[in-house]
Amino acid sequence: MSKTTFFFLFFSFFFTSIQAQKEDDAKFIRNVYTKSLTESQAYPWLEYLCTRIGGRLSGSPQAAAAVEYTRQMLDSLGVDSVWLQPVKVPHWIRGEKEIVRILNSSVGDMDLTNLALGNSLGTDVKGLSAEVIEVKSLDEVDKLGKKVAGKIVFFNRPMDATKTNTFHAYGGAVDQRGGGAIRAAKYGAVAVLVRSMTVNIDDVPHTGATHYEEGITKIPALAISTKAAETLSDLLQREPVRVYIRNTSRMLKDVPSYNVIGELRGTEKPSEIITVGGHLDSWDPAQGAHDDGTGCVQSMDVLNVFKRLGYRPKHTIRCVLFMNEENGLRGGTEYAKEAERKKEKHLAAIETDEGGFTPRSFSFEVEEKEFAKHKDKIQQFSSLLEPYELTLHRGGSGADIGPLEKQGVLLIGLNVDTQRYFDIHHTPTDNIENVSPRELQMGIAALTSLIYLLDKYEF
Amino acid sequence: MSKTTFFFLFFSFFFTSIQAQKEDDAKFIRNVYTKSLTESQAYPWLEYLCTRIGGRLSGSPQAAAAVEYTRQMLDSLGVDSVWLQPVKVPHWIRGEKEIVRILNSSVGDMDLTNLALGNSLGTDVKGLSAEVIEVKSLDEVDKLGKKVAGKIVFFNRPMDATKTNTFHAYGGAVDQRGGGAIRAAKYGAVAVLVRSMTVNIDDVPHTGATHYEEGITKIPALAISTKAAETLSDLLQREPVRVYIRNTSRMLKDVPSYNVIGELRGTEKPSEIITVGGHLDSWDPAQGAHDDGTGCVQSMDVLNVFKRLGYRPKHTIRCVLFMNEENGLRGGTEYAKEAERKKEKHLAAIETDEGGFTPRSFSFEVEEKEFAKHKDKIQQFSSLLEPYELTLHRGGSGADIGPLEKQGVLLIGLNVDTQRYFDIHHTPTDNIENVSPRELQMGIAALTSLIYLLDKYEF
Repeated sequence: MSKTTFFFLFFSFFFTSIQAQKEDDAKFIRNVYTKSLTESQAYPWLEYLCTRIGGRLSGSPQAAAAVEYTRQMLDSLGVDSVWLQPVKVPHWIRGEKEIVRILNSSVGDMDLTNLALGNSLGTDVKGLSAEVIEVKSLDEVDKLGKKVAGKIVFFNRPMDATKTNTFHAYGGAVDQRGGGAIRAAKYGAVAVLVRSMTVNIDDVPHTGATHYEEGITKIPALAISTKAAETLSDLLQREPVRVYIRNTSRMLKDVPSYNVIGELRGTEKPSEIITVGGHLDSWDPAQGAHDDGTGCVQSMDVLNVFKRLGYRPKHTIRCVLFMNEENGLRGGTEYAKEAERKKEKHLAAIETDEGGFTPRSFSFEVEEKEFAKHKDKIQQFSSLLEPYELTLHRGGSGADIGPLEKQGVLLIGLNVDTQRYFDIHHTPTDNIENVSPRELQMGIAALTSLIYLLDKYEF
Repeated sequence: MSKTTFFFLFFSFFFTSIQAQKEDDAKFIRNVYTKSLTESQAYPWLEYLCTRIGGRLSGSPQAAAAVEYTRQMLDSLGVDSVWLQPVKVPHWIRGEKEIVRILNSSVGDMDLTNLALGNSLGTDVKGLSAEVIEVKSLDEVDKLGKKVAGKIVFFNRPMDATKTNTFHAYGGAVDQRGGGAIRAAKYGAVAVLVRSMTVNIDDVPHTGATHYEEGITKIPALAISTKAAETLSDLLQREPVRVYIRNTSRMLKDVPSYNVIGELRGTEKPSEIITVGGHLDSWDPAQGAHDDGTGCVQSMDVLNVFKRLGYRPKHTIRCVLFMNEENGLRGGTEYAKEAERKKEKHLAAIETDEGGFTPRSFSFEVEEKEFAKHKDKIQQFSSLLEPYELTLHRGGSGADIGPLEKQGVLLIGLNVDTQRYFDIHHTPTDNIENVSPRELQMGIAALTSLIYLLDKYEF
């Protein structure tokens, strides 16, 4: 054989084999979509979580029910192992229906639609009343300084509706909810009210976690609807306003709970793990459908789809349902700690916590240089996912998997169409009626396809 | 000046100017999104159409109300002209609540959830009953031939849920609804039942047009829900089934109606037109929200956004609300005829009739060679629309603008996320509650941006 012939044969073989491999992958991914769109169990699971269990805030009996239900469902799939990973979680309870009432104004008394923010301490049983001072930012509180002492600080910077990705709009406003109570208390304020996190003007209140800091007085913090915020702000333009707040929410002592984990053991590298997960806890006023029931049932269904396709992964594929994302991140923190203790190697961790809407892309939480280094693989994966209108790019991933970052784990987030999320996020309307089974299933297919590629080619 | 210096300066100028132009365009498009997301009137208009007028089938008083309402709203925008283009339309009415009832089966009598198909003639007032024969395709009727004589033919091929684009699934099944009555009547069948056009298994019936052919008996045609279809099919596996049908729908004589048109006159080439439109008529059982109220208010709002931006287009930009897309296409046909009579030159015609969901792409209804010829422009437009996750590709456009094709007009369709459309398409649940204001607004911004580029650079 001449050298030329040899090289010709070698390259022919090489390219034919690459082409054949690409066709195999395309076929496998096509089958993933077929199974996901016709044999998914995610929606019935979600229906059970939403309608038979409901809101499942950390430490609640419903959270315990959700742990047991999802454990049983994972078990029913016949995966290689299913277990509960113990984690102590905060136990916050809302108490009685909160009151936020404008007092003796020129339009009389007026109740404002509200929800206590998660982790908020209550007022005393009689409630409190004080004058309201409106601000648009945490910095503005610093500038006002002692002027806020004895007052209720009202954070009223809206989410920016002009941002096409609503998560960016959320990111630009949510510091008020998370950090408002600390900042206001620092200067002696007695409570905070926060404009709800949505671009809509409606009467739906959005809860969510607020934080406290050791050494700074813990003052009550409540969200009011955007319509209530507009009303209050309008009134403040005209006259001083006193507001009465009554809130009996409180933090009890930590309780035992669990992350729920199921896995398919790898055939070649069982000690190398790819995780996919969402969080099992959810806010109490609704069913926790999109936040994050959908992420949980999608992650569970990834194992289901692999089983139904008879796929034996090279690496271990693990579904993790994290507890306590909403008001403590204890599940994610504990998961990372145990991984470190056991010296587990994670090839990648993927989170789905943007709601069960149509998937659009995966974002890789890596430096630009790191991303560029993997150009060929990104291109290879992209070309296989492109028929399903999925792209790959750099960006954030998810809160629960965040603690794995310092172990150098590749973190990936599933990004979805974000237009409807902040209509329902942390509100009484985050219910199953607002979930489209098809959109949910498209997410399962997307996740399963990416995990297949990571399992086969690593990254 | 040396030749080199000259060329250097020339090219510097040339590229700087291209770069500056691109920045101007990006800025303009950014402003389009800002206006669309904050000052859109589309949702309130849609609310009026849906809740104050409701279903507006051609020839109905509601269709007349919709014509007058949208004419007034276009007029209120202060565009250059608004007028009504006369068109005679068919006038079909549903009559009394239809009955489809399984008779004397082993499970007794059983009513099946149904809706007469649009254009269907009724039974006589007593109804008819006959044995049912199930088929999966029009071809199967040909094979059965005279065996279907005297029977009710039941078309039961489901939409293919594995197709990720639900319009493709619809396209693969809808021949049964459109052509089933003709095919079955050819061999002497007395009526047809058609499985509803959706991938869901539920009890929601989907109406839609059926067709008749001159010289072939016009037999009644009704859609039954997919759940009813499964029930009927299961029963047919076990025993012969007789079904009773009563339907009083009928076709009355044609009535006068209108396409509603508004335009911004071009400053440089007023005789060259870019149209954008949807259809004003909608099926009677619901409010016609996504089909195609959303397309109408989006098209109207394109003019509104241009006005608010103070943009004076070079070409004439025309919003056309077509009448009678659903059961006759008379509006689209008449529009094209008049354009031909008046020798109007259309630079492009764009249709939005896939529902008011998040926009994904524009499809250009042109030959591959033609598309390739415009590679540079496609690339230029794409790079400007890419930040908004919009792509351009070849594909279908829309029914109403179809008749313009033979005049060589560039036809373009707005493509949206399709996952939820066939949950509500032609059903009693196509109501405003299922429309997301943000998704609707994103469509307006997408349409306005593309029209801006077409106006500025042509194609």
